[in-house]
Amino acid sequence: MSKKKIVCLGGGTGVSVVLSGLKKYPIDLTAIVTMFDSGGSSGKLRKELGISPLGDVRQCLVALSNENNLTNLFHYRFGRSTLKGHNFGNLLIAAAIGTTGNLEGAIEKITKILNIKGKVVPVTLERADIIALLKNNKKIKKEEEIINCPYLSKIGVKKLFLTPEVKANSKAISAIKKANLIIIAPGKFYTSILPICLVKGISEAVRKSRAKKVFVCNLMTQVGSTDGFGVEDFLTILEEYLGKDVIDYVVFNTGRLSTNQVKEVRKVFPGADFIKYDKSLLKKQKFIGADVIDRQIRKINPADTLVKGANQRTMVLHDSQKLAKILLDLCKR
Amino acid sequence: MSKKKIVCLGGGTGVSVVLSGLKKYPIDLTAIVTMFDSGGSSGKLRKELGISPLGDVRQCLVALSNENNLTNLFHYRFGRSTLKGHNFGNLLIAAAIGTTGNLEGAIEKITKILNIKGKVVPVTLERADIIALLKNNKKIKKEEEIINCPYLSKIGVKKLFLTPEVKANSKAISAIKKANLIIIAPGKFYTSILPICLVKGISEAVRKSRAKKVFVCNLMTQVGSTDGFGVEDFLTILEEYLGKDVIDYVVFNTGRLSTNQVKEVRKVFPGADFIKYDKSLLKKQKFIGADVIDRQIRKINPADTLVKGANQRTMVLHDSQKLAKILLDLCKR
Repeated sequence: MSKKKIVCLGGGTGVSVVLSGLKKYPIDLTAIVTMFDSGGSSGKLRKELGISPLGDVRQCLVALSNENNLTNLFHYRFGRSTLKGHNFGNLLIAAAIGTTGNLEGAIEKITKILNIKGKVVPVTLERADIIALLKNNKKIKKEEEIINCPYLSKIGVKKLFLTPEVKANSKAISAIKKANLIIIAPGKFYTSILPICLVKGISEAVRKSRAKKVFVCNLMTQVGSTDGFGVEDFLTILEEYLGKDVIDYVVFNTGRLSTNQVKEVRKVFPGADFIKYDKSLLKKQKFIGADVIDRQIRKINPADTLVKGANQRTMVLHDSQKLAKILLDLCKR
Repeated sequence: MSKKKIVCLGGGTGVSVVLSGLKKYPIDLTAIVTMFDSGGSSGKLRKELGISPLGDVRQCLVALSNENNLTNLFHYRFGRSTLKGHNFGNLLIAAAIGTTGNLEGAIEKITKILNIKGKVVPVTLERADIIALLKNNKKIKKEEEIINCPYLSKIGVKKLFLTPEVKANSKAISAIKKANLIIIAPGKFYTSILPICLVKGISEAVRKSRAKKVFVCNLMTQVGSTDGFGVEDFLTILEEYLGKDVIDYVVFNTGRLSTNQVKEVRKVFPGADFIKYDKSLLKKQKFIGADVIDRQIRKINPADTLVKGANQRTMVLHDSQKLAKILLDLCKR
C-alpha cells in the first residue's frame, strides 16, 4: 500500500507544530506555505535582497528536519551589529537562493542539508501583499500592519485580498490534487491562513480534491484580530474564501491552562482568551473537540528584536503528538 | 597500531589545501589556525560583534568536511543589502558562537554539523593584532595593512610581533606535544604563518615536540611582502621565530605553469613570481623539491566585495593529493 499523502496548508509556528507531530509517521507529507510576510527579518531581507519572505518556509523546514545540530541554529537571531535582528535560518535560505538562483532551488538544497523527508512548497512563487478591507471601508495594507491593527475584529473585515493577484505554485496544486488528507493548520487567521486561500487556484484545487479536509482551529484569540471569536466564527469566515461545506472536519481544543499560566500568557498578549465553543459541537461528527493544548508554555526569545509587539511568537501551542494522532485517525475514517 | 597524529599550522587557503589532501587518509588530523584577520567579512564581524576573526577557522572547517551541500554555501558572499560582503560560513560560525557562547563551543557544534573527523583548533582564544616593525623603524599595524603594504619586502621586516602578547590555546599545545608530524602550511608568510609562531607557547612546544617538522614553502611570491624570496629565505626567517634547525624537512615546488597561465595570474597579481630555489637544494635530504603545483587555476569570486586588492584569494594552489603523499611519506621516514 502506498503511503498516505497528507498536505498541510499554513504558515509560521502553527503549521510547524502540525508538521513536527506528523513527521514521525510513515506518510508522504507536504507543507504548502504562506508567503506574505512583510515584517521582521523576512521583511528586511525581502526589501533588501528582493527575495521572497522566508520566515514561514524556514519554520517548516526546521519542523520537518531531524538534523538537530543545524536546526538549533536556525532560530538564532543576531542581537548586535548590522546583522541585528536577522535570523540565521533566513540567512541560510538567502545564501542558498544566492547560490541556486531561486527559492525553489534553495528549498531543494536545504531539504538535502537538513535531511528532510517531506516537502516544503511555497504557495506561490510570485510576490504579493495582503490587504484587509474593513467594514468601515478602511484598507489595512501589508501583513505587518494587519497583525498590528488593534481594531480588526472590532470593526470587522469585509474582504481580504492579495495585491497583485498571484497564481499558485504548480507544485502546490499538484500536491493538493493527489492528497488523501488536507489540513488547514492553525495560525494567524488573516495573515497566514486565509491568504493561502486567496492565491489563484488554491481554493478551487482544495474544493475539487477528493481528500478529506480538516481545519485545525486556533487555541487562543489573537488580540486585535480575532477577539471574541468562537470555533464556528473561524469556520464561517474560512468557508467564505474556501467554499461552503468544503471542510469535512474541524478539530478544536477543549483543554484549558491553569490560572497562573493564563496570567503568564496575558502578560505578553493582554486580552488573549481561549477560543470559545458551543457544547453542542461536541455531539456533531464534523466537530472534533479534544484537549490538544501543550501545557509547556514557550518563552519568547528576547533577541527577537525585529519582531516587536504583536508579531511576537505564539506562546501557547498545540500538543503536536496529540494533534498528529487525531489527524491520522481522520485519514483512516 | 594507533593512527598517526598530524598537526598542521597555518591559515586560509594554504592550510585548507593541505588538510583537504590529508583528510582522505586514516590519520588523526588537527589544524591549528591563525586568528589575526583584521579585514574582510571576518574583520567586519570582529569589529561589529566583538568576536574572534573567523575566516581561517571557516576555511579549515570546510576543508575537513565531507558534507558538500552545506559547505558549498560556506563560500557564498552576500552581494547586496546590509549583508553585503558577509560570507555565509562566517555568519554560521557567528550564529554558533551566539548560541554556544564562545568560539570553541561553536567549532564543536559545526564539527558535528559538517561531520568532520579532524579537529580545528584556534591557535589562541585571546584577541591580538599583528605589527610589523620595518627596517626603517616604521610600524605597519594590523593584518590588512600588512597585506596591503607595497614595500614590506623592499624595506624589509626587522621584527614581527603581536599586540597584546597572547598565549596559546592549551588544546593547541597539547596537540603539538602528541604529534608525530608537524606541518607548517603554505600561506601568507607575515600574516598567517609567522604570527602563529609568535603566540606564547607555540614555538617552544614545536621545538620540544618529538614530531618530525615539515615546512611547506609557498608556490609564488606575495607582491609587496615576499618579492624575490627564495626557498631558503623563507626558512631562514621562519627559523628566527621558531628556532634554529627546528625544521626537519622543507617541501618546495619545482613545477612551473605555462606562459599563458602565468599571464593570467599576473593580471590579478602583477609581479608575482615562482619562489626560486638553488638547484643544490635538490641534493640535500632536508629539502624535498617536487612538482606540487595544481595546474587548475582558481577563479576569484567577483562577489568577494569586502576583499579588495591585495587580499584577493590565491589563485595558484598546491596539488593537495601530491602534497599529501609527500607529507605522509615523511611521516613514515
